[in-house]
Amino acid sequence: MGDGMVFIDGEYVAPQDAKISIFDNGFVKSDVVYDVTSTWKGQFFRLDDHMDRFLRSCAGVHMTCPYGADEIKRILAECVERGGVGEAAYVGFVPNLRDTDVTFIAYAVPYAWIVPPEVQEKGIDIIVAKTRRIPDECVEARYKNHHWGDLTRARIEALDAGAHNAVLCTPDGYLAEGPGFNIFFVKDGALHTPARNMLEGITRRTVHDLADELGAPHHDGDYRPDDLREADEAFICSTAGGIMPVVKVDDRVLSNGAPGPMSAKLRELYWKKREAGWHGTPVGDLLGQRAVA
Amino acid sequence: MGDGMVFIDGEYVAPQDAKISIFDNGFVKSDVVYDVTSTWKGQFFRLDDHMDRFLRSCAGVHMTCPYGADEIKRILAECVERGGVGEAAYVGFVPNLRDTDVTFIAYAVPYAWIVPPEVQEKGIDIIVAKTRRIPDECVEARYKNHHWGDLTRARIEALDAGAHNAVLCTPDGYLAEGPGFNIFFVKDGALHTPARNMLEGITRRTVHDLADELGAPHHDGDYRPDDLREADEAFICSTAGGIMPVVKVDDRVLSNGAPGPMSAKLRELYWKKREAGWHGTPVGDLLGQRAVA
Repeated sequence: MGDGMVFIDGEYVAPQDAKISIFDNGFVKSDVVYDVTSTWKGQFFRLDDHMDRFLRSCAGVHMTCPYGADEIKRILAECVERGGVGEAAYVGFVPNLRDTDVTFIAYAVPYAWIVPPEVQEKGIDIIVAKTRRIPDECVEARYKNHHWGDLTRARIEALDAGAHNAVLCTPDGYLAEGPGFNIFFVKDGALHTPARNMLEGITRRTVHDLADELGAPHHDGDYRPDDLREADEAFICSTAGGIMPVVKVDDRVLSNGAPGPMSAKLRELYWKKREAGWHGTPVGDLLGQRAVA
Repeated sequence: MGDGMVFIDGEYVAPQDAKISIFDNGFVKSDVVYDVTSTWKGQFFRLDDHMDRFLRSCAGVHMTCPYGADEIKRILAECVERGGVGEAAYVGFVPNLRDTDVTFIAYAVPYAWIVPPEVQEKGIDIIVAKTRRIPDECVEARYKNHHWGDLTRARIEALDAGAHNAVLCTPDGYLAEGPGFNIFFVKDGALHTPARNMLEGITRRTVHDLADELGAPHHDGDYRPDDLREADEAFICSTAGGIMPVVKVDDRVLSNGAPGPMSAKLRELYWKKREAGWHGTPVGDLLGQRAVA
């Protein structure tokens, strides 16, 4: 397993050499959009869905990406291959306002887990944070961005409370999302997840697909913290960790303190299907395209 | 006039060599606080006020600054001296969550104007943006930070409307601030500025001091956009430009389209007193302290 590889300023460099100017608007004004996908056992997952979302993010904040989807896919495959990482993540970003300079970065680094697999087996404790999620009328969460101040503040609340993580509500009191993940809960056999003011997660979409396969109904809606606290079970989901069961929300223990049956089933199915190549794009195929072109 | 100087990782480097890792949480999660002061004719302005605010920002987001106020002041003076800039700005920032690594940067670069002096003479057009300012229950504006997504979005609205800049309201509809500046308006001889959800600007405080000197009453309060539109005159203020008259808000022309008498008087007094050394700390005095110590 290698350390990964970064594509920046048109060149491939080691992660420790990948740097940006402290005067870059991507840093100074957090004028950045990005996306993160993963590889597992040599295959990208839902790569075109990530490309679509990334290019929607660029357009949403009036940025122009210097590369098209096919070029970005080849660059990502190069990062994975040169970096020696079977697991990978990528960042594409385009700082600066409108017609000024544009910077594009892509990277592949060893797979990151929001919750390590051994902790996922037991399930995690979360809180509903007092800190509120930045509302879409300020910064739109669907255009994936680096505005993590509220998420970090909520995470500090969670750590102070002895919990693993936190979920945030919008200022008007509806469940939104957590730091880098979407939230689901299960009630009477049906899945529920917030419909607004959150990243339209690719793993979130995948949960919907898996629920369809299992014949479980699912709904997107406006939910209050009590809907979550009074659920039969709950889980969070992210590219960085998959489907991760929740066993406690604030002081409320869910599903007797162990991952609920629906959460466990979805988690198992998620990894089984990924390993079987579901929605997969072999890294080598993209490199092959480049060699042939 | 030099190009400036940056202090980073304990060393002084040229601005173009000052870089941070793309994996730094200060970039990836915008986990940063900062502050900006200025020098003019060889003197820092209200340097201790900036130090106090910067250290309050650090504490407010649970960060620990590796340097105390006196050390930071000496580092800033070194940046100004080595960078050959009579005018300067500084950034101090401390990324990363809690007890992990801390990065501190300071810099001095040629003075930046939000509005160039020749445009200030005529006054600027602003709009009240549709985009709302991130509310304090999400990310607190008084802890000066890089969450500029809403400000940039509002600025794009302004450029689309043919205006110079924008002021934003909170989600509940009260005037807050603009990209890097506070807003004031004058009605019946009294000054008014928003009391909540904005940076507690050092220039804002200076305006209050100057108003006291002129015998003009001033109030901090909760104001609606119509209060601004129906004002006799208005101005914005910032370390990066001082006191800058506004002559139009949306479709409403203020003070017959020329800087209002109060705005012009405050602006003149601001620069006159700065040049006379008001609240000033000579750069050389700080360097002297170091040599003696």
